[in-house]
Amino acid sequence: MALIVQKFGGSSVADAARVRNVAGIITDTYKKGNNVVVVVSAQGDTTDDLIEKAREISANPSKREMDMLLTSGEQISISLLAMAIAELGYPVISLLGWQAGFNTNSSYGSARIREIKTERLEKELDQKKIVIVAGFQGLNKYDDLTTLGRGGSDTSAVALAAALHADRCQIFTDVTGVFTADPRKVENTQKLADITYDEMLEFATLGAQVLNNRSVEMAKKYNVELEVLSSLVREPGTIVREVAKMEKMLIRGVTKDSDIARISVVGMKDIPGNAFKMFSRLAQKNINIDVILQSVGRDGTKDISFTCAAGYADEAVEILNDIFAMEGAVVSSDTSVAKVSIVGAGMQSHSGTASKMFGALYEAGINIGMISTSEITISVLIDKESADKAVSAVHKAFFG
Amino acid sequence: MALIVQKFGGSSVADAARVRNVAGIITDTYKKGNNVVVVVSAQGDTTDDLIEKAREISANPSKREMDMLLTSGEQISISLLAMAIAELGYPVISLLGWQAGFNTNSSYGSARIREIKTERLEKELDQKKIVIVAGFQGLNKYDDLTTLGRGGSDTSAVALAAALHADRCQIFTDVTGVFTADPRKVENTQKLADITYDEMLEFATLGAQVLNNRSVEMAKKYNVELEVLSSLVREPGTIVREVAKMEKMLIRGVTKDSDIARISVVGMKDIPGNAFKMFSRLAQKNINIDVILQSVGRDGTKDISFTCAAGYADEAVEILNDIFAMEGAVVSSDTSVAKVSIVGAGMQSHSGTASKMFGALYEAGINIGMISTSEITISVLIDKESADKAVSAVHKAFFG
Repeated sequence: MALIVQKFGGSSVADAARVRNVAGIITDTYKKGNNVVVVVSAQGDTTDDLIEKAREISANPSKREMDMLLTSGEQISISLLAMAIAELGYPVISLLGWQAGFNTNSSYGSARIREIKTERLEKELDQKKIVIVAGFQGLNKYDDLTTLGRGGSDTSAVALAAALHADRCQIFTDVTGVFTADPRKVENTQKLADITYDEMLEFATLGAQVLNNRSVEMAKKYNVELEVLSSLVREPGTIVREVAKMEKMLIRGVTKDSDIARISVVGMKDIPGNAFKMFSRLAQKNINIDVILQSVGRDGTKDISFTCAAGYADEAVEILNDIFAMEGAVVSSDTSVAKVSIVGAGMQSHSGTASKMFGALYEAGINIGMISTSEITISVLIDKESADKAVSAVHKAFFG
Repeated sequence: MALIVQKFGGSSVADAARVRNVAGIITDTYKKGNNVVVVVSAQGDTTDDLIEKAREISANPSKREMDMLLTSGEQISISLLAMAIAELGYPVISLLGWQAGFNTNSSYGSARIREIKTERLEKELDQKKIVIVAGFQGLNKYDDLTTLGRGGSDTSAVALAAALHADRCQIFTDVTGVFTADPRKVENTQKLADITYDEMLEFATLGAQVLNNRSVEMAKKYNVELEVLSSLVREPGTIVREVAKMEKMLIRGVTKDSDIARISVVGMKDIPGNAFKMFSRLAQKNINIDVILQSVGRDGTKDISFTCAAGYADEAVEILNDIFAMEGAVVSSDTSVAKVSIVGAGMQSHSGTASKMFGALYEAGINIGMISTSEITISVLIDKESADKAVSAVHKAFFG
C-alpha cells in the first residue's frame, strides 16, 4: 500500500463528464489499496472568468480581494469532484487549502507555503477517505485567504506529497508525458520514460508548459518522485526523479519560449555597480531575468541586453529608464524574439553538442541573436517567426 | 454616529452595474459618519447555477459537499463588492462567514447559528473599514463550512446586528417596503411606514416573500430594528419593530400563499394519541404544519386535514401512510389550494373583522375550504385559481 498524491488541472475537470473521468482515475488508484490525496485546480476557464468579473469592477483591484475572489474557483471543483467520487461509492471528503493546513506568507497573488499542518489530512486518511484538496490556495497568519499564483496547484501537490511523505506525486495534464519536443508541432518526437529534476527544471524554465517550475524545485528539494501523465489517455507517463536511467541520451529535448522580450540598455556609463543596480532593482520587483549579454559600447559606455517574460517588459523598461535615462542611456524592448533551447544532463560529457545545434540552425537559414549556456542547456535567441522551424531543425539533428 | 448593518440580496448584486449601485448606497451611509457592516448574498442565479452543476454529477450529493459548493457563491460577491467600494476610495474588507465569526451547528444545508465571535469584525470596524460579510454561511465545530439554508442571508444580517448591537438592520430588496398586498397584483395598495415583529412574522409565514421568517424571529428576540427597503429606489422603507405607530389601522395587509398542499387523513381510528403520533412524526422530519382541521368521521373514526408547504406533500403522505394505512385510513394530498390571510394586531380589539373578510369573499363568489385564526391573523383556504381574485376582493374591503 502506497500513499499517492494526484494533481488534476483545470482542463481535466472542465465539465461534468471530465469530473467523472477524473473520479474514475482516482478510485482506480484507491481500489488498488493506495491512500489517495488529490489536488485539483479550478474548472476550465473559471479563473479567467473570475478575473474578468473583477476587471468589470476595478482596473486595479486589491490583491487580497483578488485572492478572496479566485479561491472560490477551487472550492467549486473540489466539491464537485468529491460528489462524483461519492457517486461511485467511495468514502471521500473535500478540503479547502486552509482546511488541509496550508499556511502561507502574506504575498497575496503569489504566496509562499510556510508549512502544511497535516493533522486534519491524516485524520481523514486514517478513516480511509479519499481526500480532495483545493490547489493554489492557503491561509496567512491574519486568517486571510492567499493564492500561490498561476500554476500554484502543481506546487500545492508537491508540497503535500513532501509533507505527507507520499510515495509518488502524479501530475495529470493534457499530454501523456514529457517529449523531446512539442509533439503537436514537431515530427518524430519521443516520450521520455524518465528525466532528472534539473532537466525538468530547465524544460520548465525554457518554455515547456508541462510543469510549473516552483513545483519541480520543491520536488527536487524534498526528493518527491513526480510522474507527468495524461488524464485522458491511460498510459505510463514520464517520471521525474534525482537520477534518470537514460544516461546515454545526449539531450532530452528541444524547447522554445516565445513569450519573452529582449530588453536593451545602450550607452550605459561603464562604472562599477551599474549592473548590480540594474538587476537588484529588477529583482526587487520580482522580474526574473534570463539570458544576459554585456558588450562594450562607444566612448567608455557599455550595453547590456537581457531577456525576461514578455509580460514584464514594460515594467522593466520603466524601471531602467528611472535609473539610466538621466545618464543618457537608451532603454528599449523587443518582443519579436523567441528562445530555442536544448536540454540534457548528457551534454556535459559530450563535446560537439553546441556545434551540432548551431549547424542545424545555420542549415535552416536561421540567424542567432544571443547565446546562453548552462551545464545542461544551450539556448539561442532568434526571430520569433523562425522559432517553430528552428525547433524542428534542431530536433531533427539530434533525434533524426 | 450609528452602526448600521445592511443586507443585499442576490438580485441587488447580479452584475457589475448593480454591484456599483450597491457600493454607492453603502458609501453614502458611511459618508454620513456611520459604521457600516454589509451582508451580501451570492450574485443573481449563482446559487441555482451551482446547484445545477451538482445535479449534473449526482442526484443526491452529500449535504456537506453541497455546502462546500454553495458557499463559493458569496465568496465571489463579497470580493467584487469590496473591490467596487475600494474603487470609490473607501477603506473596505471582505470576510467569509467563518472569518466574521459565524459558528453554527452541523446541520449542513440548514445550520443554526450558535455564536458570532465578533473580535475580527470589531478590529476591522475600529480601523474604520466598511466590512463586507458573506451571508448564508458559517463554520461548524469540525472546521467545515455550513450554510443556513435558503434566505439565510437575512438571518446572517440580523444575527450580526444583534451581536454587534447595531442601531439598525436594513434589508435591501427589490420592493420599496411592505405593502398592504402585493402591488404587482392588487390595486390601491399602500406601503406601511411601520409594522410589528409579530405582524411581519405572520406576513412571512403567510406567503409574503419580503423577509425570511427566521430572521424576523431573531430580530424580535434580540430587539433588532429592521428596515425593509429597495436597493434601486432610494426612499424610506418599512420599519419593523416591537411597537408600530399605526395602532389605529385595523389590519396591515392581505397576503396569499399558493405554494401549499392540503393533506387529508380520512377514516383514522378515534383513539387517544393518534393526532400526537401524526404530528410528532411530521415534526421529526421537519415538516411544518399550518392550518389543522379535525372532524368526526363515520363509524367511530375521525378525519384530520392540515396544510404544509407543497414541497413536503409527498413526504408527508408517505409518513402518514406508514402510520395509518394499516388501520384502513386513506391519506391524500391536494395542491390545488391556496391560503389567503389578513394580518394586523389591530383586529384583536375590533369585532367584525372576520365577517368583513368572509363577506368580501362571498360577494366575489369564492368558496371557503378551511378557516384558521390567530390573535392577529385570519386565514382561509380556497381554490388556487381564485387566490388573486380573493386577495383583491379582501384588500378592497379593508383598504378601499
